[in-house]
Amino acid sequence: MSESHVETNYSSRQSRLEGALKAANLEAIALNAGPSLTYLTGLHFHLSERPVVGLFTPNLSPVIIFPELEAGKLANLSYPVQAFSYGEDPGKWQTIFLEGMQAAQFDGRRVGIEPRRMRVLELDLLEGTGLITEFTSGEECLAELRMIKDKNELANMHQAVEIAQGALESVLSWIKPGITEGELAAELTVGLLRGGSDSQLPFTPIVASGPNSANPHAFPSDRRLEGGDLLIIDWGASVGGYLSDLTRTFAIGEAEDEMKRVAEIVMEANEAARAIAGPGVAAEDIDRAARQVIVEAGYGEFFFHRTGHGLGMESHEEPYIRDGNSLPLTPGMTFTIEPGIYLPGRGGVRIEDDVVITTDGLESISDLPRELRIIGD
Amino acid sequence: MSESHVETNYSSRQSRLEGALKAANLEAIALNAGPSLTYLTGLHFHLSERPVVGLFTPNLSPVIIFPELEAGKLANLSYPVQAFSYGEDPGKWQTIFLEGMQAAQFDGRRVGIEPRRMRVLELDLLEGTGLITEFTSGEECLAELRMIKDKNELANMHQAVEIAQGALESVLSWIKPGITEGELAAELTVGLLRGGSDSQLPFTPIVASGPNSANPHAFPSDRRLEGGDLLIIDWGASVGGYLSDLTRTFAIGEAEDEMKRVAEIVMEANEAARAIAGPGVAAEDIDRAARQVIVEAGYGEFFFHRTGHGLGMESHEEPYIRDGNSLPLTPGMTFTIEPGIYLPGRGGVRIEDDVVITTDGLESISDLPRELRIIGD
Repeated sequence: MSESHVETNYSSRQSRLEGALKAANLEAIALNAGPSLTYLTGLHFHLSERPVVGLFTPNLSPVIIFPELEAGKLANLSYPVQAFSYGEDPGKWQTIFLEGMQAAQFDGRRVGIEPRRMRVLELDLLEGTGLITEFTSGEECLAELRMIKDKNELANMHQAVEIAQGALESVLSWIKPGITEGELAAELTVGLLRGGSDSQLPFTPIVASGPNSANPHAFPSDRRLEGGDLLIIDWGASVGGYLSDLTRTFAIGEAEDEMKRVAEIVMEANEAARAIAGPGVAAEDIDRAARQVIVEAGYGEFFFHRTGHGLGMESHEEPYIRDGNSLPLTPGMTFTIEPGIYLPGRGGVRIEDDVVITTDGLESISDLPRELRIIGD
Repeated sequence: MSESHVETNYSSRQSRLEGALKAANLEAIALNAGPSLTYLTGLHFHLSERPVVGLFTPNLSPVIIFPELEAGKLANLSYPVQAFSYGEDPGKWQTIFLEGMQAAQFDGRRVGIEPRRMRVLELDLLEGTGLITEFTSGEECLAELRMIKDKNELANMHQAVEIAQGALESVLSWIKPGITEGELAAELTVGLLRGGSDSQLPFTPIVASGPNSANPHAFPSDRRLEGGDLLIIDWGASVGGYLSDLTRTFAIGEAEDEMKRVAEIVMEANEAARAIAGPGVAAEDIDRAARQVIVEAGYGEFFFHRTGHGLGMESHEEPYIRDGNSLPLTPGMTFTIEPGIYLPGRGGVRIEDDVVITTDGLESISDLPRELRIIGD
């Protein structure tokens, strides 16, 4: 994983966490392997059958509980930690968790966790110490820290978009009837890696053709592209652990007239959402702007997902651009705008851009053409 | 994701689950998105911020709770399901979970979960219904079903090994001093995908050179290969969702004499473990066989991880080949044998094979040369 030019100051992020905890009425936080732990420490751990947690208590050095065989990762940190490692016998986990939690002075504290990330495996070990019987969600508090991207983070995201766009352009001329979705996904992945993406891609490209394109989260299949298909490609790159996540829709040869119309509506919806976004605008208003275009065109029931999601170290994170989310957008927030229309059994269109809120509006980091391009002729 | 030739019979897997539940003194099981759910249903869901669970109760059709936008995945199933979907408002999740759990007749039942897979997100929703206050681990019961691979599963794993081996051979001549670990990881990934791996690789290849090779779980970095480095490559492919996971160690030009000796010891340890394995042998005995070779050579403290792990739909699964695991091996069980020696600050050697227990011993699915090969001259 490549590092940004300027060294990230993890101590400063840990200090900002202390403020965020206080504001959230939390006294500490426990994080398992994942992006929030990486954000605060720079440490990358696999989410595996061996539990890893970081315990953060104001005015104490973070406690890291981890498997001994990962000890190399804790060398040369730029900040102090309290390290607790265990060997290959799961029977020792509970004891090490108790020691770590005591070192973090967790006894009786009000401690947050991330319910979307933490597993029952780690929760049971934390609760099994008897020091704390109930945890509350600290998700918002972490989201607040991570939502506003700094200059380095934005530079990485710009590069991740650039690599993704270049990779798509490099495979377009290669797409033709007869190739399978899986083959196209593989070629696109090759382009992403050759183009300089981190080797850990944000997600496997979605390549969905013909009727499969009506399923927003299709896995690439052995289906072969045919003339007249719509083709949805949803893909992204990663740079220094920061992601891009784009979608464009193509027609293999000529598309049906209704599908061409649908593609225009989705493009208008994407544009309407980008036009309204800016500092102080609520997340749900962006969703409404896109949805209104599609509803008024008579396709409301076929746009059955939110308009977008936050993007950064995770391919889905806060802020979620959906009905009911009144969060006001702030400069530095990064998210996707990705309206879609899906006609069951026939096909779908989605157009997804990665955007950042600026001081006076919105910048779309991605700029590939949005109209329905005809390819594979 | 490619499918095996013979259609998998999910109804039969669900029936086998009923027997396994009974043997484990469980009355039902709740699974979130992941390989066990896929094993029982053939359904692939992303582990995302939107919860997905399958509820399995003997003599009832499985209940699937999932986001509406994934509805396409439930078309054309070969067995009946009770489907409960929700839209984009998380405020509705709890109600849908209650309806689903009622349909699964979970009220007051003894229900298992997978602590290593289930998140607090899903657990809170299951518990929030008030129908069940405590869940127990159903991990062993699922592991028992999944550990013994059938013919189709083994065929996929053989192909996944073949693709991985071919991909490595295709990049070997390209490796030379000056290229970075990250570049090598990308080229290897290209080889895996071009070779026919599923587009979702089991994991990002580990490419660890020089001192980095002393860290068993290093991420590929920007470090450039140098003459005299040891180079550990740990990589795998996926076929129909079944994985390979191999490691070989190379020397960039001439290695130090001690490192050559270390490589021989690890090779002997790998061989000793393969030689002893067979039906009825305990998992821990295989670990002991490998460890004994390394301890007797005086490097015991530098082999600080277990000898292997099960392999199948997950890159780490049961059976774990470690001290303290008395599980007797059975024909059809598949796992890795991967002893290693890691000298901090200097470098490491690991040799990992994928093996299957047969009726009269062990077959190594992988067969790349195991000695320390000199490359990059």
